[in-house]
Parts: sequence; C-alpha cells; structure tokens
Amino acid sequence: MKLDHIGIAVKSLKDSVPLFEKIFNAKASSPEHVAEQKVIVQKIRIENMDIEILEGTSPDSPITKFIEKKGEGIHHCSFRVNDIFEKLNYLSAGGIRLINQTPKTGADDMLIAFLHPKSTGNILMELTQEKQG
Amino acid sequence: MKLDHIGIAVKSLKDSVPLFEKIFNAKASSPEHVAEQKVIVQKIRIENMDIEILEGTSPDSPITKFIEKKGEGIHHCSFRVNDIFEKLNYLSAGGIRLINQTPKTGADDMLIAFLHPKSTGNILMELTQEKQG
Repeated sequence: MKLDHIGIAVKSLKDSVPLFEKIFNAKASSPEHVAEQKVIVQKIRIENMDIEILEGTSPDSPITKFIEKKGEGIHHCSFRVNDIFEKLNYLSAGGIRLINQTPKTGADDMLIAFLHPKSTGNILMELTQEKQG
Repeated sequence: MKLDHIGIAVKSLKDSVPLFEKIFNAKASSPEHVAEQKVIVQKIRIENMDIEILEGTSPDSPITKFIEKKGEGIHHCSFRVNDIFEKLNYLSAGGIRLINQTPKTGADDMLIAFLHPKSTGNILMELTQEKQG
C-alpha cells in the first residue's frame, strides 16, 4: 500500500495552480475534466507521488460542497493497492466503513473505492488499483 | 522535493493507532514524546512515506488546538528537501509566507521549517532536511 496522490480542493485552478507550481517548482499538467466527479483536475508530479489540484464544476460537485463546508485544503488521500477487492473485504471485515462496497471506474480507467472518513480518523481515503490487462 | 510524511491529529493514540494499523496493515512505532512540540507521536511506515499519528500532551499543544478548531484529521504534510535554506529563500522571494524564517531543529535532529497555510492553499506544509554530517 503506497500513497498515490493527495487531492487538494481549490476554488480556482487559475489562482491556485501557479502557487503550487511555485512551491513544488514543477509544471502542472493541462486541465482535465472528470465529468463523473464534476471536477477539473491539474496534477503536479513530485518525486514519490502526485499532487492533484481539484476545482468543482457545479454547485453539487463534491469539491464545491467540501469547500463550502470546510474551506480550501486537502480533500482526500489516495493509496495504490495491488488487489482492491481483497483490500475492501479485509477492511470491511475489520469494521472499517466503506463508501463504495465495490470498486468503480475512476479517472485514467483505474478501479477506485472510497473509505468512510468516520472510520478513518476523519480523513477521506481512496484506494486505487490498475485494471488488469 | 518529496513527501516525507503526513501528520494526523488524533485525540487518543490508544483509540486511533489500532485503526490506522488495521488500514495500513502495519505495526506503528512505540510512542515517542516530542516535548518541544507538546506531542506524542507514533509512526507507521508505508512503502513510500510515513504516517505520523499525533496526540497533544497539553491544552496549548498545537495538536490539541487544531482538534478543538477543526476536529481530528490531517494536520500537516512534510516534504523533504536537499537544501532547506535555499528553498526558504526561493519561496520567500516568490511571495510565499513562512512561519519559520530560518529552520529550527525538530524531532530526529532534522532541520525543519513551516510554511504559512495562508500561502499554501490552506495546507500546513513543513519542509525538512537532514543536518549535514
């Protein structure tokens, strides 16, 4: 299990991306629209992980709602696993609440599932796995 | 610049550490008291970074105050750099506000400095550097 990326909720990519580019001294990827999540994302690659900077595209986007409630900041942490089905079973059996009982397909055609923050110290955690060829 | 660890603020290590041990399927280190920061910390090593789980030791601990204001959750992200003095100069010149203008000595005898969350998208970021032999 390793950290894949940290997702950061921002009001405006235009305002925030230059800031993170300065801090990490690296260029962000072009904006990518993930329609299903109602977000636009730009990524900054650092040595051992990605920073995903996320702007909501509508009032009911999870990112827009997060910012309304908590303000800008870290939205989620995403961990790469080898077998997401096995991991979800293991966590569920251990009493960890899952948002997604079974994985769904996310950006970049990855399998993804979210754990419930109530079970994870108030941190929204995502698990991801590459689909098998 | 690479992510070194994520610091998670918890009310009780006794309650929370078993939870994170379950999620990451790994054993946490023994509790370590960092008197200067007024915290007790237990660490979980995952493949490419550490999770630091932090409990405040007094009402004026930064961790206790953080939890009072925002609840449990991610407290800070810590990034390892090669030259912390150079990096602080670069960031300051770029208009990023610093909490520590010059590095101080933190846990494990590392040089550390915090950036101001107002300048970093509402995320408390720490820079760390190993002291030169």
